[in-house]
Amino acid sequence: MKNPEQDIHREMMNRAIELAIHGMKKGDGGPFGAVVAMGKKIIGEGWNKVLSSNDPTAHAEVVAIRDACSKLKSFQLEGCIIYTSCEPCPMCLGAIYWARPKCFYYGCTREDAAKIEFDDEFIYKEIKLAPNQRSIPAWNLQREEALQAFEFWKTFESKIPY
Amino acid sequence: MKNPEQDIHREMMNRAIELAIHGMKKGDGGPFGAVVAMGKKIIGEGWNKVLSSNDPTAHAEVVAIRDACSKLKSFQLEGCIIYTSCEPCPMCLGAIYWARPKCFYYGCTREDAAKIEFDDEFIYKEIKLAPNQRSIPAWNLQREEALQAFEFWKTFESKIPY
Repeated sequence: MKNPEQDIHREMMNRAIELAIHGMKKGDGGPFGAVVAMGKKIIGEGWNKVLSSNDPTAHAEVVAIRDACSKLKSFQLEGCIIYTSCEPCPMCLGAIYWARPKCFYYGCTREDAAKIEFDDEFIYKEIKLAPNQRSIPAWNLQREEALQAFEFWKTFESKIPY
Repeated sequence: MKNPEQDIHREMMNRAIELAIHGMKKGDGGPFGAVVAMGKKIIGEGWNKVLSSNDPTAHAEVVAIRDACSKLKSFQLEGCIIYTSCEPCPMCLGAIYWARPKCFYYGCTREDAAKIEFDDEFIYKEIKLAPNQRSIPAWNLQREEALQAFEFWKTFESKIPY
C-alpha cells in the first residue's frame, strides 16, 4: 500500500540530494544539501557554501536552518522536519538542536562522509575527549570574571529566556 | 615573574567577557562573547545574536569565526586563537574544528551554562546516543540515492579538497 507521508519524505530527500549536486557543481563547497519543510511545504533550503562564502560554518544544514528561520522570522523551527543529504556533523547536529525541529532524515552516513575525506567522524571522536586532550586543545581561563556575565543575566530584567 | 603571553590571553578573554555583557544588554541574545586573535591582534569578534537576528546558529563563537574568516577572506583560521566567555556548545565546538584555530580558551564552563538554563550540557549528552534514540530523532533515508552525490564528488575534476 502506498504511504503518502513516506512519499513526501522521499521527495524532500531527493530535493536535498539535488541541492547537494547543484552546490558542488557550482564550486560552492562539498556535496551536501539540506531542506527544512513543514509538511509538504519547503520553508528553507541550503547547500554547502564553505568555499564560495569563505565561511567554515556554511554547511548545508546551517544554511538551510538560517534560510528557514529568516523566512519564519523565528529562531525556532517548531513542527518542521529537516532533510539532509548526509548525516549532520557535530556542528550541524548542534544547530539542529538549537533550532528544535521535530525530527530529521539523513541520506549518507558519517562513515560515508569519512570515505570521501570529510572530518565529521573525527570531530565526533574529539568531542568526547577532555578539552585539553583534544587536537585543538582548550583551556579554562578567568572563570570568575566570566561568571560575572552570567550573574548579570540571572537578574537581567529585560531578558527573553530561550 | 610577569608572563607577557599570559597577559595577552587575559586581555583577550576580558574582551570576550565585555562583548558578552554588551550583547546581553543590547537584547541581542544570551550572555556570551568571543574573540578571534592572531597574537596581539583581534581578527574577529562576536556576541550571541540569536534573538536579534532570529538565527539559532548565531552563537558568539560562530559570529566571531564568520567575522574573522570574512576579514581574512579564508575559511580557515590557521595560527589564530579563539577566546570565548563560555565553553563552546557542540555546535560551536564543531565550528571551531572546521575553522581550525591552533587552540582556544574559555571562561565559564558548560556546567555554569546549565545553571543559567542553557542546553549545552544536554546536547553533549544527546550527541552520544544513536540517532533514532535522541529527543530530536533522526532516520536514515535513501542512502543509495544520496551516495550518488558523493560518487560525483570523487570524480569531480574542479573540486577543491578542504
